[in-house]
Amino acid sequence: MADIELAADDAAEMPYQRFGIPKLGFENYWYPILTTRDVRRKPRSVRLLGNDIVLFRDAGKLFALDDRCPHRGVKLSGGRCAYAGSGTISCPYHGWTFDGASGQLVAALMEGPDSPINRKVTIRSYPVREYAGLIWLWPGSMAPSVLEEDVPEYIGQQDRFFSISMFTDYKCNWRALVDNWPQDHHAQYVHRTSPELMLQPVLPFALALDPFPLDGNKGIAIRRSGGMTRADYPGLGGFPNNEWWRVMKPSGRGNVRGFETSKAHKVYGIRNQSEVWLPGLVVVGRLSGEYALVQWAVPIDENTTRCFNINNWRRLGRWREIYDRANYYLWRGWMHDRIFSDQDKTMVEALVPGPERLSKTDVGVIAWRKFAGAHARRPPIADPSNINPVAADQPVRRHA
Amino acid sequence: MADIELAADDAAEMPYQRFGIPKLGFENYWYPILTTRDVRRKPRSVRLLGNDIVLFRDAGKLFALDDRCPHRGVKLSGGRCAYAGSGTISCPYHGWTFDGASGQLVAALMEGPDSPINRKVTIRSYPVREYAGLIWLWPGSMAPSVLEEDVPEYIGQQDRFFSISMFTDYKCNWRALVDNWPQDHHAQYVHRTSPELMLQPVLPFALALDPFPLDGNKGIAIRRSGGMTRADYPGLGGFPNNEWWRVMKPSGRGNVRGFETSKAHKVYGIRNQSEVWLPGLVVVGRLSGEYALVQWAVPIDENTTRCFNINNWRRLGRWREIYDRANYYLWRGWMHDRIFSDQDKTMVEALVPGPERLSKTDVGVIAWRKFAGAHARRPPIADPSNINPVAADQPVRRHA
Amino acid sequence: MADIELAADDAAEMPYQRFGIPKLGFENYWYPILTTRDVRRKPRSVRLLGNDIVLFRDAGKLFALDDRCPHRGVKLSGGRCAYAGSGTISCPYHGWTFDGASGQLVAALMEGPDSPINRKVTIRSYPVREYAGLIWLWPGSMAPSVLEEDVPEYIGQQDRFFSISMFTDYKCNWRALVDNWPQDHHAQYVHRTSPELMLQPVLPFALALDPFPLDGNKGIAIRRSGGMTRADYPGLGGFPNNEWWRVMKPSGRGNVRGFETSKAHKVYGIRNQSEVWLPGLVVVGRLSGEYALVQWAVPIDENTTRCFNINNWRRLGRWREIYDRANYYLWRGWMHDRIFSDQDKTMVEALVPGPERLSKTDVGVIAWRKFAGAHARRPPIADPSNINPVAADQPVRRHA
Repeated sequence: MADIELAADDAAEMPYQRFGIPKLGFENYWYPILTTRDVRRKPRSVRLLGNDIVLFRDAGKLFALDDRCPHRGVKLSGGRCAYAGSGTISCPYHGWTFDGASGQLVAALMEGPDSPINRKVTIRSYPVREYAGLIWLWPGSMAPSVLEEDVPEYIGQQDRFFSISMFTDYKCNWRALVDNWPQDHHAQYVHRTSPELMLQPVLPFALALDPFPLDGNKGIAIRRSGGMTRADYPGLGGFPNNEWWRVMKPSGRGNVRGFETSKAHKVYGIRNQSEVWLPGLVVVGRLSGEYALVQWAVPIDENTTRCFNINNWRRLGRWREIYDRANYYLWRGWMHDRIFSDQDKTMVEALVPGPERLSKTDVGVIAWRKFAGAHARRPPIADPSNINPVAADQPVRRHA
Repeated sequence: MADIELAADDAAEMPYQRFGIPKLGFENYWYPILTTRDVRRKPRSVRLLGNDIVLFRDAGKLFALDDRCPHRGVKLSGGRCAYAGSGTISCPYHGWTFDGASGQLVAALMEGPDSPINRKVTIRSYPVREYAGLIWLWPGSMAPSVLEEDVPEYIGQQDRFFSISMFTDYKCNWRALVDNWPQDHHAQYVHRTSPELMLQPVLPFALALDPFPLDGNKGIAIRRSGGMTRADYPGLGGFPNNEWWRVMKPSGRGNVRGFETSKAHKVYGIRNQSEVWLPGLVVVGRLSGEYALVQWAVPIDENTTRCFNINNWRRLGRWREIYDRANYYLWRGWMHDRIFSDQDKTMVEALVPGPERLSKTDVGVIAWRKFAGAHARRPPIADPSNINPVAADQPVRRHA
Repeated sequence: MADIELAADDAAEMPYQRFGIPKLGFENYWYPILTTRDVRRKPRSVRLLGNDIVLFRDAGKLFALDDRCPHRGVKLSGGRCAYAGSGTISCPYHGWTFDGASGQLVAALMEGPDSPINRKVTIRSYPVREYAGLIWLWPGSMAPSVLEEDVPEYIGQQDRFFSISMFTDYKCNWRALVDNWPQDHHAQYVHRTSPELMLQPVLPFALALDPFPLDGNKGIAIRRSGGMTRADYPGLGGFPNNEWWRVMKPSGRGNVRGFETSKAHKVYGIRNQSEVWLPGLVVVGRLSGEYALVQWAVPIDENTTRCFNINNWRRLGRWREIYDRANYYLWRGWMHDRIFSDQDKTMVEALVPGPERLSKTDVGVIAWRKFAGAHARRPPIADPSNINPVAADQPVRRHA
C-alpha cells in the first residue's frame, strides 16, 4: 500500500507531487479522529485517509474495523454489538460477527455455530487508542509506533499536561491546511483583526526565516529574525493602516518576540516556540511555557480535512487547572478555536489548488514540503510491493 | 441493443459480470412502472432501465414514447395532448405532434399541414399496458410477450385474484435488491424485530438450501430443510438472545414450515411457497394459499430501483374482499409494505458494491445469478447486431 | 487560447462542432455580465466563458482581474480594496496587492516594501467597461474592439436611446438559447399564451425564410414571406384551436407583418425588424421604430447561460421617457421580461442536447450556425499558437 499517488497532468498536484506528498496523507502515523465522548456503544462510522472505518466500544475497550462486511458488502456501522463483553460487532444484514481486535469472523450467525467459514475470514482491523481525550487511529500498513513517543510532549506526557480538544471539518485538502502553518506570514495579515490579536502589538512581518529540522527528524522549526511592524508602500500607503484599536493597551498575550529570554525557554527548556511536525501538525507555545496549542490536519478524504485544536496546559495544581479549564470554556475556546481558526478556514477553503508563485515568506512552506517528502515514515523501499509503479519512475525525493 | 454491459475493471460489477447480469436490467420483460392512478391526461415522465419515457392518456388509452423530441431535443413530457381523441402528444417547443401508438410524426404544426416532413419521422414507442392496477412497460427490442402469461398467476389471473400495489424508490442497483430474495437468510436476522415476525416463532436458520428451476425456466424455487431455531456460539452466547417478546403467544402468520401439509399445497395445488422469477421478482405465499405478495425490483437507472409491493388476494366473495382490503389499508400496508420492507431498504442502501465472500447461506443467491444469466430472454444470438463487441470476447455464459 | 473545442464522440456537440461553435462561447467579443448597480466597493466574483473574474471599484473606476492570487491560489474576491484611491485589490491571505488596471503585483504586503517580487508578477486583467447601465467584459485574447461600435446602435448610441436591463441565469448551454432566436417558429407556438400575444392576431407560421448576412457580417437577418394563420391538420384538427381569447380586440402591439410600410422602416430607416448578431444576441424592434429589445445569451459555463433582456427606447423627450420607464416598471418588465422570457427558459432548460432533425422552420437556425462559425472574430490563423491541435485536423469551416 504505497502512500504516494501521482497524477502527472493534474495542475492541482504540482506543488506537492515533486516532493512526494500524497493527496490522502501519510499513512504510517497516528491520527486523532474523534474525541472520546463521540463514540459510545453504538457503532460509529468515520473516514480517515479515504478509508471507511467503524468504531465501537465493548467491555470498556475500543475497536476499529474496516466498515464493510466482506460477505455481501453492507456497512458494519449499521450493525450492533450484539454480545456484550465479547468485543464483537455483528453485521446488520446476516449477522456475520467479527472480533474487534483481530478482525476475524467469529460466527456467521445465520449459518449456525458449526459453519466451516467461522474463523476463515478476516477483515482489516486498525490499531486504535484512546488517549488524552481523543480517539487515535493508525491507518498505515507498518506496525504502529508508540503513540506517546510519536506526538509532541504536550500530548504525549499527560502526567505533566492536560488537554482539551475540539475539531472542525474543512472543505479542503489537508496539504492546504498544513501549508498554513510554517510561518508563512498569513497570521500577521489574516489574524490581525481577531479578538486574540487586536489588542496586541502588531506582529512583525517581512521576517527572515531560517528553517531547520528537529532532533530525530520529527518536524521542523523556523528561526525568525529581522522584520518590521510598519512600512510604507509607494503608491499605496502604510501597513498596517487604520488600526485605531491598536491605541489600546496591549495585553502581551500574542507576543512572538523574545523567546530566548522567555520563561518557556529558560525555566522549562522548551527549544522552539513553534514547530511543524509530521504527519501534519503545528505546535505553538506561549512564552510562559505553560500552554501550547497543537493543531492537527487530519486527512479525511481528498477534499475534506478535520482540523483538531488540541489545547494543552501544564499541570500546575488543582486551582490552576480549574482556572485554565474555566478560561477555555468561557473565553479562549470561543475566541481562538472558533473565531481565530475560522479565519484560517475561510482562507484554505477559498484556495483553488494549482500552480503557485512562492516567494520569500514561503521559505518555511518550501522547507516543510521538502522535509515532509524526504522524512515521512514509509515502508522500507526494499519491499517492492510498496513501490507505486508510477511513482517509482518519477524523480521524487524519498528517504533522502 | 445488447443488454449486457461489461466493465471489466469495475470491482462493483464483478459479482454479476461473469453471469452476464446487466447493470441496467434485462430488457425483454414487462415491468410495472407506476400505478394506474399516477398517470392522468397530463403527460408524465418516467425512467426505466435508463430510458426516459413519456406516458400520457388520450381517448381512454395509454401511450408511451421516447421522452425527447427528435427535432430540437426538448422533452415531450413538457408538452400536452392538444388534440383530444387523436392519441397524440405535441412537443411544447414547436408543436411536433406524434402518434402515441406508432411514434410517427403526424404533423409539425409550425410547418403547416403540407410539410413534407410529416410521417417521415418516427420515434420509439414502447409497448404499454394497464393491468391489475399497474402500468406496465416493455423496454426491450424483442416483440413483447403476453403480459398475463409472463407474470405469476396471482397477477396474471385477475379473475381469480385481486391486487393492491405500492412502490418505493431505493437508492441501490436493482441486483442488490433481487439478491435479497433467494432465501439468503437475511429475513431470519433483519426482520426478527419487525411487527410481522415479533409475535411468531423464531424462523429457522442454517437451513440446507436446494434450488431448482421452475417449469419453463421462469425462475427458481429453493427447497429448504434442516436448520435450527436456537444455537449457542462459543465465545459469544446464544442466538436469538434477549427476545423477551417471543414469550407472547405466536399468531402463526409468519410460519414457513409445513408447506407440504398446508392448504396452499393441498387445496390450491401451489407448488412452492416462494419463488424468484425473471426478470427480478419474488413471490411469497401464505400457507392458506389465499394471499401472495409479489415484490418486483424495477431498474430505474444504475443507482435507483423501484421496489413494487404487489399484494394479491384470492377472490373469495364480496365480504371477504372488503375485509382483505380494509385489513391492508388499516394494518398490513403499514406493517409490511412500510416497516418490514423498509428494513430491507436500509440494508440494500447500505451495501457498498464490490468483492463478496459468499457462503452456505448464499446457495440461493448463487443459484439465482447463474439461472438469471443463463435463462434471461435475449434476442437470438444469430443476430450479430445484438452482440456487444466487448461482451462477445468475454467468457460470459449466455443461453447455457 | 483557441476558442474551438471539439469532443468528437460527444453526441451533444454534434449540432455545433462541424460549424466550429465553441461550447464556452466566442471569446473575442464584449459581453454584459452584470448591471452597474450590482458591483460596489466590495469585490464581486463573476464567471464568464468559464473564467472566474473578480470585479471591484475604486476611485470611481471599475477593474476586472483573474479571481485567483498566483501566490498560493486563494480567490481575490475574498479580499478588499485596502488602499482607497490606488485602484488595487489585496489578497485576503497574505496581502498580495494587485493593480486593477494592469494586473501587476504592486506589493506583497507581508514581504515589506523592498521585496524583489514587487512588480515582477502580473495576473490577467480583463478589459472592462460600464456602459448603458451594464458592466461589460472582454474575455478574449485579441485587443478589445470599440464597444459602442460592436453592439447594436440601440445600445451603442446612448445619446439617441436609453436602456433598462435585467438578467436571469438559465440552466442550459448558451447555444441552445441563441438557437431560439433565428425565426425558428417557436414564438408562434410557445408564446401564443403569453400576455403579450394573447390579445394579438395569431402570428403567421409556416413562413418561407430567407436568411442573409448583415453589412459587415455582424449577424444575419431573415426575410419572411408567405405563411398562414390557421390550418387544419388531417386526423388532428385546427391550429390554433380553442383560442377563445382571440375574439377580443387585438391591440396591434405584437404585429410582425408590414415592416416595409412601417414607421420604423420609412421614418427611421431601420433595415430589419429583427436581427441575430454575433457573438449571440437578438434585436427585435417594434414597427414604431421607437423601441427595440436586445436579448443576449452570455455563456457563464458549459451549463449556465445568463440571459440579458436589454430594453431600449428612442429618446423622444422627457415626458415620453418618464412614460416609457413607468410603463416598463409597472407592466412590460413583468409581462415580457418575466412571463414571456420564462416561457423560453422552460423550453431551453428542457432541451436534452444530442442529435437533431432540423427541417424547414429551422432554415434560420442553420443559417445562424453556419454564419457564426464562419464569421466569428478569431485571432489570425497565421498565429499557430491559436490553433487547437485537435481542431486543426478536423474539417471545421473557419474564416470562410
